[in-house]
Amino acid sequence: MARRAAVHRVPMRHPADVAGIEALFGSGALDPRAIVAILGKTEGNGCVNDFTRAYAVSALAAMLAPRRAETAREVAARVAMVMSGGTEGGLSPHFLVFSVADTPEPPTGALALGTALTRDFAPEEIGRLPQVLATAQAVRFAMAEAAITDPAQIHYVQVKCPLLTSERIAEAEARGATVATQDTYASMGLSRGASALGVALALGEVAEGALEDAAIGRDLSLYSSRASASAGVELTRNEIVVMGNSPDWAGDLVIAHDVMRDGIDLPAIQSALRRAGLEANGQLAGAEAERLVALLAKAEPSSNGRIRGRRHIMNDDSDINATRHARALVGGVAAAATGRTDLFISGGAEHQGPDGGGPVAVIVRKP
Amino acid sequence: MARRAAVHRVPMRHPADVAGIEALFGSGALDPRAIVAILGKTEGNGCVNDFTRAYAVSALAAMLAPRRAETAREVAARVAMVMSGGTEGGLSPHFLVFSVADTPEPPTGALALGTALTRDFAPEEIGRLPQVLATAQAVRFAMAEAAITDPAQIHYVQVKCPLLTSERIAEAEARGATVATQDTYASMGLSRGASALGVALALGEVAEGALEDAAIGRDLSLYSSRASASAGVELTRNEIVVMGNSPDWAGDLVIAHDVMRDGIDLPAIQSALRRAGLEANGQLAGAEAERLVALLAKAEPSSNGRIRGRRHIMNDDSDINATRHARALVGGVAAAATGRTDLFISGGAEHQGPDGGGPVAVIVRKP
Amino acid sequence: MARRAAVHRVPMRHPADVAGIEALFGSGALDPRAIVAILGKTEGNGCVNDFTRAYAVSALAAMLAPRRAETAREVAARVAMVMSGGTEGGLSPHFLVFSVADTPEPPTGALALGTALTRDFAPEEIGRLPQVLATAQAVRFAMAEAAITDPAQIHYVQVKCPLLTSERIAEAEARGATVATQDTYASMGLSRGASALGVALALGEVAEGALEDAAIGRDLSLYSSRASASAGVELTRNEIVVMGNSPDWAGDLVIAHDVMRDGIDLPAIQSALRRAGLEANGQLAGAEAERLVALLAKAEPSSNGRIRGRRHIMNDDSDINATRHARALVGGVAAAATGRTDLFISGGAEHQGPDGGGPVAVIVRKP
Amino acid sequence: MARRAAVHRVPMRHPADVAGIEALFGSGALDPRAIVAILGKTEGNGCVNDFTRAYAVSALAAMLAPRRAETAREVAARVAMVMSGGTEGGLSPHFLVFSVADTPEPPTGALALGTALTRDFAPEEIGRLPQVLATAQAVRFAMAEAAITDPAQIHYVQVKCPLLTSERIAEAEARGATVATQDTYASMGLSRGASALGVALALGEVAEGALEDAAIGRDLSLYSSRASASAGVELTRNEIVVMGNSPDWAGDLVIAHDVMRDGIDLPAIQSALRRAGLEANGQLAGAEAERLVALLAKAEPSSNGRIRGRRHIMNDDSDINATRHARALVGGVAAAATGRTDLFISGGAEHQGPDGGGPVAVIVRKP
Repeated sequence: MARRAAVHRVPMRHPADVAGIEALFGSGALDPRAIVAILGKTEGNGCVNDFTRAYAVSALAAMLAPRRAETAREVAARVAMVMSGGTEGGLSPHFLVFSVADTPEPPTGALALGTALTRDFAPEEIGRLPQVLATAQAVRFAMAEAAITDPAQIHYVQVKCPLLTSERIAEAEARGATVATQDTYASMGLSRGASALGVALALGEVAEGALEDAAIGRDLSLYSSRASASAGVELTRNEIVVMGNSPDWAGDLVIAHDVMRDGIDLPAIQSALRRAGLEANGQLAGAEAERLVALLAKAEPSSNGRIRGRRHIMNDDSDINATRHARALVGGVAAAATGRTDLFISGGAEHQGPDGGGPVAVIVRKP
Repeated sequence: MARRAAVHRVPMRHPADVAGIEALFGSGALDPRAIVAILGKTEGNGCVNDFTRAYAVSALAAMLAPRRAETAREVAARVAMVMSGGTEGGLSPHFLVFSVADTPEPPTGALALGTALTRDFAPEEIGRLPQVLATAQAVRFAMAEAAITDPAQIHYVQVKCPLLTSERIAEAEARGATVATQDTYASMGLSRGASALGVALALGEVAEGALEDAAIGRDLSLYSSRASASAGVELTRNEIVVMGNSPDWAGDLVIAHDVMRDGIDLPAIQSALRRAGLEANGQLAGAEAERLVALLAKAEPSSNGRIRGRRHIMNDDSDINATRHARALVGGVAAAATGRTDLFISGGAEHQGPDGGGPVAVIVRKP
Repeated sequence: MARRAAVHRVPMRHPADVAGIEALFGSGALDPRAIVAILGKTEGNGCVNDFTRAYAVSALAAMLAPRRAETAREVAARVAMVMSGGTEGGLSPHFLVFSVADTPEPPTGALALGTALTRDFAPEEIGRLPQVLATAQAVRFAMAEAAITDPAQIHYVQVKCPLLTSERIAEAEARGATVATQDTYASMGLSRGASALGVALALGEVAEGALEDAAIGRDLSLYSSRASASAGVELTRNEIVVMGNSPDWAGDLVIAHDVMRDGIDLPAIQSALRRAGLEANGQLAGAEAERLVALLAKAEPSSNGRIRGRRHIMNDDSDINATRHARALVGGVAAAATGRTDLFISGGAEHQGPDGGGPVAVIVRKP
Repeated sequence: MARRAAVHRVPMRHPADVAGIEALFGSGALDPRAIVAILGKTEGNGCVNDFTRAYAVSALAAMLAPRRAETAREVAARVAMVMSGGTEGGLSPHFLVFSVADTPEPPTGALALGTALTRDFAPEEIGRLPQVLATAQAVRFAMAEAAITDPAQIHYVQVKCPLLTSERIAEAEARGATVATQDTYASMGLSRGASALGVALALGEVAEGALEDAAIGRDLSLYSSRASASAGVELTRNEIVVMGNSPDWAGDLVIAHDVMRDGIDLPAIQSALRRAGLEANGQLAGAEAERLVALLAKAEPSSNGRIRGRRHIMNDDSDINATRHARALVGGVAAAATGRTDLFISGGAEHQGPDGGGPVAVIVRKP
C-alpha cells in the first residue's frame, strides 16, 4: 500500500481549452478528485498584462468544480493551478496534470508530490523577506506532505507568486506603506526572486543569515538550483508544489534535475535526462522521446548582456520583453535536446539557478 | 597561384559599429580592397520597418569608401552588403566579412566565392517571375565568377532582395500597374520566395516549366536547399553571393550544408558540421567550437501551425511577428549544437528548404 | 405606456471584472433580465490572439446565467455580447450594458433598440453577397422591432459576424464549394465588410445593383456611415443591434452620429455631439461631459499611408499592428472632444465609413 | 541690424531621408551654415533600442559636412541634432530645422534661439545631481547666447540626454562605481528627469535646495513647465536648445506655451495657440493651420494609472511601452487641435510638467 503520482501532458488549442482533460476523465484515465496540481504553459506574453493565465485557471476551476463536487473556490484552494505564460519560439501550449492516488502496490521508490499555500501577502511584503520566510515555511509543509525529509530528494519546487499592479501599489501607498518597486514589471522579478530564496532557504541552499531585503534581486550569487517561480496578476499569495523521489511512493515515474549554467547549456539538459535514465545521445527520438513525460526549466537573460562572452540584446529590446527572448532561447535548446516542443519553460529565473542560467528538471517514465 | 577566400567574424556593439572591421585593417589581418561581401546580423525587428539594416550598410560604406579609394556608391556596387535583421532569443549581432585574394599557394580545394547583382526591379515585378528569372541569371553569373561549374559544389546562396512599401505600391498603381500584394509585410515573403526560386532554377532544383506567378508563396513543394533570401527596404534589386567548394581555390576553409526538415532539427545541423569535418558529438566545445567560422541558416514557422504534430503559436501572435519567433527558435537549436550565439540565422524561408524547415550551411577551418 | 432603453457604462479592472455590473443588480439600478446587449472594450491587442474578448464573454455568461435563470448557452443566445479588444493610447476598459423595459411613461421620443439574428451561413456565403443580403434583411427586422421605419432615424448598427476556420473551409470544399478566402484572418475583414454593406443596403446608403462579390473588401467607395462590425469565431450567423431614435419610445436618452472623414476629424465628432444636443464648444466639461453616456466609433489606418497628405507609419510598423495605432489615434481625438477616455473605439472598419475614417455615434442624456 | 530665427518643417520618408533639407539648400531657402539645431521625429520605438535616431543624425551630419565645409564631427559639435523616436498613432516623421542669420531689419521682437552642450557624463552621473547641475549651467549659457535674461521669456528648452546601456553599466561597475539604476529602460526616465530638473533650476522653477538624488524620478511635484528632454543611446552628454521671444531679435515667428495637466488636455493646447496669436476655435484649418510652424509637446502616462479618474492600461502593457501609448494619445489630442499630424510629440515627461501631463509650445507665423 503506497501513494502513486501520475502526470498527464495535455495539449491546449486555446487558453480555456480544457477538453483534453475532460477526455481523460471520460476515458477513465484520470479521476478528477485525484488531481493535486495543474501546471499550464499558456500562450500570453507571460508579463504583466497576460490574462491567458487567469482565463485558463477560470476555465479549469469551472470545469473541475462539478466533477469534484466542490465549488470553484474550493477547487482553487485544493488544486495548485500554476499557469506560466509565454510560448515564444516553438513552444507548444499544454497542461501538465499532476495527480496522486493510493495504490495497493508496494512502495518501490518513485516520483512524490506535495503542495502548500502561503497566507495572502500585503503589497508591501512582495519581493521582501516576509515573502521569503512564508515561502520557506510552505515548502517545508509541502515536503512533509510528500513524506520527503531529505532536501536532496527534492528535484523541483514550483512556486506561483503575486505581483504588484498600479492599483495594489496605490492601495499600499494610501496606507502609508512603501512597496519594493513602483515598476509593475520589475515587481514580477522581485516576487519570483523572494519566492526562490524561500525555496533555497527551505532546502538548505542558502543560510537565513545571508538573506535581507537588499539582497533580493541584487545578490545573484544566492540561488536555489531547484526553484521555479512564476508571477501572475491573479493571486495574492504563493502556491507551492514540491516534486522529488521518495522510497515510500510507488509508480513508474522518476524525476531528476541539473542546473543550466547559461541559456545554451545543452549538456546540462542532457545530464538531467541521463540522471533520469535516458541515454540522451544527440536528440531524443522514438521510444526515448515518448518516455519523457515532462521537462520543466527556467529561462533568464544574463544580467551582463552576454552569453559565453558574446553580446545578446535581450535586456535592451524595448519591443519584446527580455523574458520572452529568454524563453524562446531556452525552449529552442531544450527542443534540440528532446525533439519535442511541449516543454514547460518558464521565464524570470531570479535567484533560480546562476545568473543567466536556471534549473532544469525532467520527469521520465521508467522503461 | 590560386585564389583564396577568407571569412572574418566581427562582433557589433550596435548596427553602425564598424570598429571591429577597422581594427582588422589596422592590424593588417584584412585588406579593405579584398572584401567581396559582408553579411551582417543586425538587431532590428527584421521586418518592414527595420532600419538597422540600412544603417549598418550606410556605416560600412562610409567607412570602406576612403579605405578602398572608392565612393560610397562604388563600394555599394562592388561589395555585396547583406544585412539580416533580427537577433531574437540569444543571437549575437555580428558581421561576417568575406574577402578574396590571389595567393602563391597552389589550388588545394577550398571555399570559393562569387557575387552578382540583378538589375533594379519595378514594384510590380517583386514577388513574380521577372524577379525569379533575373535572380537565376545572376546566380549563374556568380558561379562563373567563382569558377564553379557543377551546381553540386554550391552549398549556400545568399540573396538580399527588396520589398514593397506603401509608397512603392502607390507609385506603381499611379502608373496603372498592379503589385503582387498590397500588404507590405507579405511582400517581404513573396520577394524572398521569388528570389529563392531563382536560386533553385539556377541550381537545377526546380524546372523552369514548373514556375509561374501563382506558385510563388503558394506551392511550398518547390524549394532550394541552398538558398537564403533576406528582404530589406533599402534596395530595389537583388544582391547575390554564392558559396561553394572549388578545386581551383586555395585556403583552410571548407563549406558544407544540410537541410533542416523542421525548426528543431538538431541532427541536420550536426550532420552539416560533420560533413565539414567536425566530430559534433553533443555540443561543440573548445578547439572544435573555435574551428566553426560561420553558421548560416534559415528559419520559418511551419504553415500548418505544428512542429512534429504539436501546435506552435507563431502564426497567430499579433504582438511578435512569426519570423521573429522562428529565428529565436532556430537560433536556440543552432546554439545548442555549436555552443555559440554568433550565428547567421535569417528569417523568412519561403521556398528555402521544406515548409517549416530550411537550409543550414557551415564554414569550418580545416584542422 | 412605452418601451424605454437604458445604457449603463461600467468600468472594468480586468477583462473578467463583472463586479460593476453585479453592483448595478444589487442596487436595483438594473434588472438582469432586461439586458439585451453588452458591448465591451477589453484590454487585449484586438488582433488574432486576443483572448481578453472570450474571457470577458465567459465571465459575463457565467455571472448572468443564474441571475437570469438561464443556462450560459441561453444567455449567449439572448444577449448580444460584442467585445472589442484594444485600449491603446488612453482608452479605458469598460462595458456598455444596454437594457429595455416597459414603462408607464408616455412615448416622448428617445433612444430605441432592436436586435435580430440572421440564419446560419454556409462557409461559402461568408464575405459574399448572401451574407450582405441576409444582413440587410435582419437589419430591417431589427428596425421593425425597434419600431423605426425611417432609415434616417437609425444612427448606429452593431453587427457581430462569423469568420472562416480551417474546419469550416474544409467542410465547404468537401462539398465542392469554394470560399471567399483560404486565409482565416482575411476572412474576418471580408465578413465585417459584407456585414457593413448589408447595413448600407438596408439603410439605403448603397444600391443593391452596385453590390457584387468582387466589390467586397475592394471598392472602398461603398460604405455605411452607421455600421460597426466585429467578427468572432463562436458564431455562424450575424447578430445585429440597431440603435436609433423613435417617437414611440420613452426615456431620457438620444442618439446621433456623423462620419469622420479621416482619423483626426474632430469637427465630425463635435458635430455628432451637437446633433445630440450638447454645445460642444471646445472640450466637453462638467455637466456636459456627464451627459455623454456613450461614444462609439470605428478606427482604421488610411490605405494610402497618409492623413491630409502627411505620411503615417501605421501600415509599415511590424512591432505594433496598424489597427492598434489607429485606435490610439482616434481615441486621442475623441478624448480631446469629450474630456473622457471610456470610449468604445473599435478597429477594422471595412466598408464602415470612408477609407481611413469611420462612423462615430454618441448617446447623450437629455438635460 | 538684428538676428533672425527661421524654422523649416521638412517631412521624412525614412530616418535617413535628408533630401527635403537638401532641396531647401538647392532653392536658396536655407543656408546650411545658418543651421543651429535640427529636431527630428523619427519612426523608431523611442525606447532603448531605437536606432532611427542615431541613423538620422548620421545621415544629417554626412549631408551637412561638405555643405558647411566642416567635418561630420564639427557638424555634430555645432548643430544640436535632437532626434525623438516614436510616431505612434498618426504622427508623421519630420525634421524641424532651426537657423539663425543676421538681418538688416531692426529688432522688432521675435523668436530667439540659443544652444549649449554639457561635458560628457560618466555612467554613474546619469540620473543624478551632477547631471542636473551641469544641465542648469548649460541652459544659462544658452540663454546668454540668445540674449534673453528674463527666464519668463523662455518658452521651451529642448534637451537631448544619454541613457545607460548594459555595457555602460558594466563599465562603471568594473570601476567600483554604482549607477542610478540597472534597468536600461528606467535609465532613460532618470536621465530625462535629471535634465528637466536642470532646466527647472536654471529657470527658477525649483530651488537648488529642494534637489537631491532621491528626488529624481520620485518627487513629481518638482517640475519644469518648459523643459522637454529626450534620451538617446547615441550620446554621452546633454545637448540643449532654448527657445524664447526676445525684443532684440527680428522675424515673423513667435513662440508661446502652456502646460497640459493630463494627456487629454485639449484646452491647454488651444490656450498656447491663442497666446501665440491664433484664434483656435475648434480645429485649426486653412490659413490658421498654415501659420502653425511647429508644435512641441511632452507625453507621459500618469503614474496613478488613471486619467480623470478612469483607468488606462499604459503602465501595465508589456507588449507596447507606456511612452508609446502616451505619445499616441497626446498626438491624437494635438492633431485634434491643429488638424495636422507633423507634430513633435516626445515621450517621457519625468519632471516635465505635472504627473501625467507636460509642456506644450507652439511656434506661429505672425499674420
